[in-house]
Amino acid sequence: MVPKDELLRRKSVLQEKLKAMDLDGALLAQKMSMYYYSGTMQCQYVYVPAQGECLGLVRRNMSRAQQEAGIALTAMAGFSGLPKVIADNAAAPKRMGLEMDVLPAAIYVRLNKAFAGVSLEDASGVLRECRQVKSAYELEQLQAAAIQVDKIHRLVPKILTEGMEELHFAAELEAALRKLGHQGSARMRGFNQEMFYGHVLSGQRGAAASFLDSPTGGVGLSPAQPQGAGNKVIQAGEPVTVDYGGIHNGYIVDQTRLYSIGQLPSQLAQAFEVALAVQEAVVAAAKPGVTGGELYEAALAVAQKAGLDGHFMGVGDTQAKYVGHGVGLEFDEFPILAKGSPHVLAADMVVAVEPKFTFADLGVVGIENTWQVTKDGLKKISVTDDKHVII
Amino acid sequence: MVPKDELLRRKSVLQEKLKAMDLDGALLAQKMSMYYYSGTMQCQYVYVPAQGECLGLVRRNMSRAQQEAGIALTAMAGFSGLPKVIADNAAAPKRMGLEMDVLPAAIYVRLNKAFAGVSLEDASGVLRECRQVKSAYELEQLQAAAIQVDKIHRLVPKILTEGMEELHFAAELEAALRKLGHQGSARMRGFNQEMFYGHVLSGQRGAAASFLDSPTGGVGLSPAQPQGAGNKVIQAGEPVTVDYGGIHNGYIVDQTRLYSIGQLPSQLAQAFEVALAVQEAVVAAAKPGVTGGELYEAALAVAQKAGLDGHFMGVGDTQAKYVGHGVGLEFDEFPILAKGSPHVLAADMVVAVEPKFTFADLGVVGIENTWQVTKDGLKKISVTDDKHVII
Repeated sequence: MVPKDELLRRKSVLQEKLKAMDLDGALLAQKMSMYYYSGTMQCQYVYVPAQGECLGLVRRNMSRAQQEAGIALTAMAGFSGLPKVIADNAAAPKRMGLEMDVLPAAIYVRLNKAFAGVSLEDASGVLRECRQVKSAYELEQLQAAAIQVDKIHRLVPKILTEGMEELHFAAELEAALRKLGHQGSARMRGFNQEMFYGHVLSGQRGAAASFLDSPTGGVGLSPAQPQGAGNKVIQAGEPVTVDYGGIHNGYIVDQTRLYSIGQLPSQLAQAFEVALAVQEAVVAAAKPGVTGGELYEAALAVAQKAGLDGHFMGVGDTQAKYVGHGVGLEFDEFPILAKGSPHVLAADMVVAVEPKFTFADLGVVGIENTWQVTKDGLKKISVTDDKHVII
Repeated sequence: MVPKDELLRRKSVLQEKLKAMDLDGALLAQKMSMYYYSGTMQCQYVYVPAQGECLGLVRRNMSRAQQEAGIALTAMAGFSGLPKVIADNAAAPKRMGLEMDVLPAAIYVRLNKAFAGVSLEDASGVLRECRQVKSAYELEQLQAAAIQVDKIHRLVPKILTEGMEELHFAAELEAALRKLGHQGSARMRGFNQEMFYGHVLSGQRGAAASFLDSPTGGVGLSPAQPQGAGNKVIQAGEPVTVDYGGIHNGYIVDQTRLYSIGQLPSQLAQAFEVALAVQEAVVAAAKPGVTGGELYEAALAVAQKAGLDGHFMGVGDTQAKYVGHGVGLEFDEFPILAKGSPHVLAADMVVAVEPKFTFADLGVVGIENTWQVTKDGLKKISVTDDKHVII
């Protein structure tokens, strides 16, 4: 259960932003947004007024919603009834924010009709900004997720063997994660994005980029699942990256570790050392007030100095100009550490930093850890040793 | 790879519908829609003109898109460039269909600006209708998915033991499915819907409904994952339902089987027999020309006759007035077999029929199989024996 004082804190953060945008309220519809502000996924909408109390609108299963929610609830009254329910419980808004990055167009059109005369504005950016800074409660969940995913990395040397199919290796790690309390569903907010546990990639096939907004993807199982583990057999001397999220009570810790059966080609071993140096540079530069764009440039500079910028975060036209991202309830939270990103770091933001190098013929090497921004710089949430493990 | 003649078949089915709706084309943006018409997920949009050839618009990774796609491809030119690219490759549309059930409002607004003067219409319903009838190629994939999921049901008697946590039981089945080629990602089209492998539910906690549009949900692991397996310990004498999809090359076979350690209370054992009778009634009634609504009524009549309509597909205000749904690349395809559903059955549609009974104090029992509609009625795709297995 999400503590009530945590829900009140979240509400007040959003309310300040709403007032600054001259919005009278925000009507939330996306599952994770509603969960974040209400503590339950059983609502059809959650209304957050610029002042006053949040209201959850429930279509089905009021009793379950009441057990889980930490906000006031009322029955959903259909689209046409929404303005009245909101006016009765809060005040009728003149300007109302929506999550236009994820809200389906059909619902948007219906809301426009139902709220005739109300100006509907896109509040997606502000809503994502509000979730960047994590509370003590959230950091506790993340710490548990870090311990969860660490445990499967300790299993890798016992499981990984030459001649094993990626899919079998993945299945063993996934079952271990699940038994440790991993919830299964791994969420991304972005339209068309999708994540399973994460990626097990090996050798050359691991170098393929996918539609996913990520530096790595892999060939996957088929064009119907074009990322992550596939039927490829893992060979000695290949890089094997395990990029899995630990997920505890909804909260994600994203991390990647490099393994190989026997030594890696020296080009890859050296690139891995550069990835560690990139990580070090980002950690040195990251503190409150620095932008995501500046951190990307700091990372790129290290790759350039090593002559590896052509392999940094992909190759050729699939290179991603980015080095990390926020994590929390979703894999693709703010801030984004990418070229030109204006997101400004602040204390208690949580970021996954993932410098990786891709070689079209050899595969991917790199490191990823999840970090808490503090006034003194980045503090590691991940607990697994960074080293390349040779089996 | 999706065969080229299969892609041509799909295109011609949609083109007939577009002409009937007086649409000049449809601009597809959802991942599975694009995959269905192009054979790849590497496109940002796929344009299907009312006549002529499909065109995939690629933002990233053209070489991978070219390897996977069975349609013509061109580079994406940003929102403002879209109308020109489409006009150059097909004809400039005057009326264009969109998937407004899933397309984010922000993209809809930008498309409205870019396509000024073009009437943008909602083609969601028609696009979902087109995917109802499965080809020989698709039925082959489904057959493989049925064999995949059958294999884990054969494992259940070896795995399921008294005192085992639901999550551990689920982890074993999931790992077995994965090794058999299950892709991981289990897709639903509906906004805010989400599916992992499926549901393992046991005893009273299995009776809880969730936000999911489904008769069953379960308490789950926490309010952050409020469906499916949780930390509950499985006891003797409880119903244990395994409702997992087999997924082969993207195609889903949805089925549920009932297990128990020792005998079930007679109320549950009897309700399971009624579920089998409901299934029989639906199978007897289902043939081309019958509506989804009629099948729901046929199912409900059997539940009523047995005096169990108050437990059919949930209890109280969480009862779902439905008995089945289409399956294919997504769990929530058309036709929907629900109260008042106008969807008309036709040969080679594929439906999951899932009569279930919920008892708030005892749990859920029921059966689910995936079937092909033929001119003579329903033909079973699932291959697992229907019986309640007592361990």
